[in-house]
Amino acid sequence: MERKCFSEAKEHLSAMEPADIAEGLEELSSTQMVLYFRLLPKDLAIEVFEVMRWDEQQRLIEHVTDKEVGEIIEDMSDDDRTVLLDELPAKTVKKLLLQLSPEERQLANRLLNYTEGSAGRVMTPEFIDLKKGMTAEEAVGRIRSVARKKETIYTCFVIDDARHLQGVVELEDLIMAGSKTEVESIMDDEPVYVNTTTDQEEVARVMSRYDLHTIPVVDKENRLVGIVTFDDVLDILEEEATEDFERMAGIQPVEDSYLDVNILTMARKRFMWLVICIITEAFTSTVLKHYSQTIQTVVALTYFIPLLIGTGGNAGTQAATLMIRGMTVGDITRKDIGKILLRETASGLLLGGALAVLGFARAMVLDTGFDVAMVLTFAVVSVVLMGNLAGAILPLIARALKMDPAIMSGPFITTIVDVFGLIVYFEIARMVLKT
Amino acid sequence: MERKCFSEAKEHLSAMEPADIAEGLEELSSTQMVLYFRLLPKDLAIEVFEVMRWDEQQRLIEHVTDKEVGEIIEDMSDDDRTVLLDELPAKTVKKLLLQLSPEERQLANRLLNYTEGSAGRVMTPEFIDLKKGMTAEEAVGRIRSVARKKETIYTCFVIDDARHLQGVVELEDLIMAGSKTEVESIMDDEPVYVNTTTDQEEVARVMSRYDLHTIPVVDKENRLVGIVTFDDVLDILEEEATEDFERMAGIQPVEDSYLDVNILTMARKRFMWLVICIITEAFTSTVLKHYSQTIQTVVALTYFIPLLIGTGGNAGTQAATLMIRGMTVGDITRKDIGKILLRETASGLLLGGALAVLGFARAMVLDTGFDVAMVLTFAVVSVVLMGNLAGAILPLIARALKMDPAIMSGPFITTIVDVFGLIVYFEIARMVLKT
Repeated sequence: MERKCFSEAKEHLSAMEPADIAEGLEELSSTQMVLYFRLLPKDLAIEVFEVMRWDEQQRLIEHVTDKEVGEIIEDMSDDDRTVLLDELPAKTVKKLLLQLSPEERQLANRLLNYTEGSAGRVMTPEFIDLKKGMTAEEAVGRIRSVARKKETIYTCFVIDDARHLQGVVELEDLIMAGSKTEVESIMDDEPVYVNTTTDQEEVARVMSRYDLHTIPVVDKENRLVGIVTFDDVLDILEEEATEDFERMAGIQPVEDSYLDVNILTMARKRFMWLVICIITEAFTSTVLKHYSQTIQTVVALTYFIPLLIGTGGNAGTQAATLMIRGMTVGDITRKDIGKILLRETASGLLLGGALAVLGFARAMVLDTGFDVAMVLTFAVVSVVLMGNLAGAILPLIARALKMDPAIMSGPFITTIVDVFGLIVYFEIARMVLKT
Repeated sequence: MERKCFSEAKEHLSAMEPADIAEGLEELSSTQMVLYFRLLPKDLAIEVFEVMRWDEQQRLIEHVTDKEVGEIIEDMSDDDRTVLLDELPAKTVKKLLLQLSPEERQLANRLLNYTEGSAGRVMTPEFIDLKKGMTAEEAVGRIRSVARKKETIYTCFVIDDARHLQGVVELEDLIMAGSKTEVESIMDDEPVYVNTTTDQEEVARVMSRYDLHTIPVVDKENRLVGIVTFDDVLDILEEEATEDFERMAGIQPVEDSYLDVNILTMARKRFMWLVICIITEAFTSTVLKHYSQTIQTVVALTYFIPLLIGTGGNAGTQAATLMIRGMTVGDITRKDIGKILLRETASGLLLGGALAVLGFARAMVLDTGFDVAMVLTFAVVSVVLMGNLAGAILPLIARALKMDPAIMSGPFITTIVDVFGLIVYFEIARMVLKT
């Protein structure tokens, strides 16, 4: 009976998508996970393992035999293996590497030696290589014979005896060509490629620009050493977008998903910018103490401090976000600075003017007198303009200093605008109220 | 001489990537653009046109003959054409549609009728369809004969006579199979698919989850009507990430790139949230007026208002960003609310405690007395905790109300924290200072 149950489960599992099986396994206890994992046909098991989250991969390999671990690690894609080995403790990695065949071990070690976040680190060497002189028929024959262990067969790479990249040929063109056509005559002999040291974000950008499923990666001597495929690009894009979101909120990039990160680690990642901001913000105390005479004379001025600096900060966050995102997707470059300043000045005056009317009305309703209302009006226009300009300029400065513009986070811009906004507010107050 | 020049230019252009040619053309004056565009071989010209920015496409079609426009529009990919027709003024669209062959016109009209942002709107009907009973050899033969007008030949779709989707087969499997093998036996008969009404963001998520190059799109009756390919996914992901960045900064999504949007439109997109925030922020004035007695007695309390509410807002922005991004990538769901509240409370106390030490030191340095320093200390812990909890809870509420959680933007959360933070600050002050 139990046996029948298992064979049914086996059949059921085999019809499912690897991503769905992986998700299902992740919900189970370790014992059950291992039980179901062992029901999977070998090939599917490897595929499922490849798409599991790395902490779940780790849980699984802790509960199966060393022999099984060896088989999984040996057969999984080289790029997925790099990711796993990256995350595991050094001791486990060492143990795992010893179980690999000498060939795979050498490969795994080589991939782990590329810098984190580089093309070398995310690529896989499992590509199909062809020679210039082959005919289309021979090429398809070679593809058929080596396809099983390759990441993709749809894009093939033409290399010479020294493994230099000479061209790229699509399977589509091989199939459409006459069987005697030489590969050389249908290949793209000026293919787009990246280097092992190219940043993964740049790899994704190039692939997206040229609509490539697969891109070749060459080493310093222009030898083809690997490929990056489109599924890697999707992962890279998601990872990089998350990093940008975090940076722009003043959080240092967190590697794992929210619920998996240790609370202390998360606090540490958030702490730095909170400290930078509170130290910068400390200047507002100096500013306010400096104007304490004015405050004591016209207490009503304090009523609008949060409204004023809040509005300036919001405008600044908006401008900075437009700027940073524009730079990330390539719409904005440094040479546009003139146009940008013009636009942000114009929209600062427009938005500031409209919001100032609301500020004026608010002050009148609160019965603080016409003079205070006028001070607030001018101050709102000024801080919105300041917010816009700070939001526009600071990310450009970061880029000019070769930093990620996203480092000019909303919180930081808000803080800067707070300090200068208050100075402007009280200077206007002094002039108008003659205190 | 000039002729030789042109033929050289022609040769040079033909060796370039379409994306690079498009970028080059976009830099030119309209006359030169047309001149160079006409040098391109027909197929390449269409490819170049497809990857041009839509406003540049518009500029080009305004400067070539109606006949040329007709040829371009007729031959371009159906999905790229939908995007172009979407952006053009209604009058131009009508004129262009008239120039299409009846078949293509009907198709263009049909695609334009799907909701914006749906799978129907981004799909192309240019897929390869096969029948169950075909052998692998027959299938490859069919692929060879129809490939030229198709978006991809690597994934083929098996349909019955009523065009119902029955399975998906990869070219790889057709090539690896024996020539007499039936398509039915190698196809995936439970393929992952989406509906014409599926949101494009969901399409991208599904394709990324299952590592698909191509996904079939079916209509209400489960008939295969189109496919979405991986290059579309990259565009969708970029577009959706930009929208999220904008929403989180309190900007309504802007369709064009920063420098192309009309200044008034951009101001309009930014205005709504600035107004919502300034109106909410107006409550801070009420709060401060309410405590004016306390302020007048201990002016030093005002020195720390920006520092206090700024810190709370920063913590709130951080927490909201982690939450919203976690929901977008699928790491966080509503059932995690207990864990989330626990985490944010813990990290709020941790971060708040650490920052409070800095706040205390700042007050002592500013010589405002031990009591005020203590008030600030307690207040900092409270606002950081409040920021964390508001940042965590508000996006979850938005999701529960079926809204995009990104609507709970940094500026909005900051504003909420400002209002409540001030109340807490002055209540603590009243208790400690007994004013």
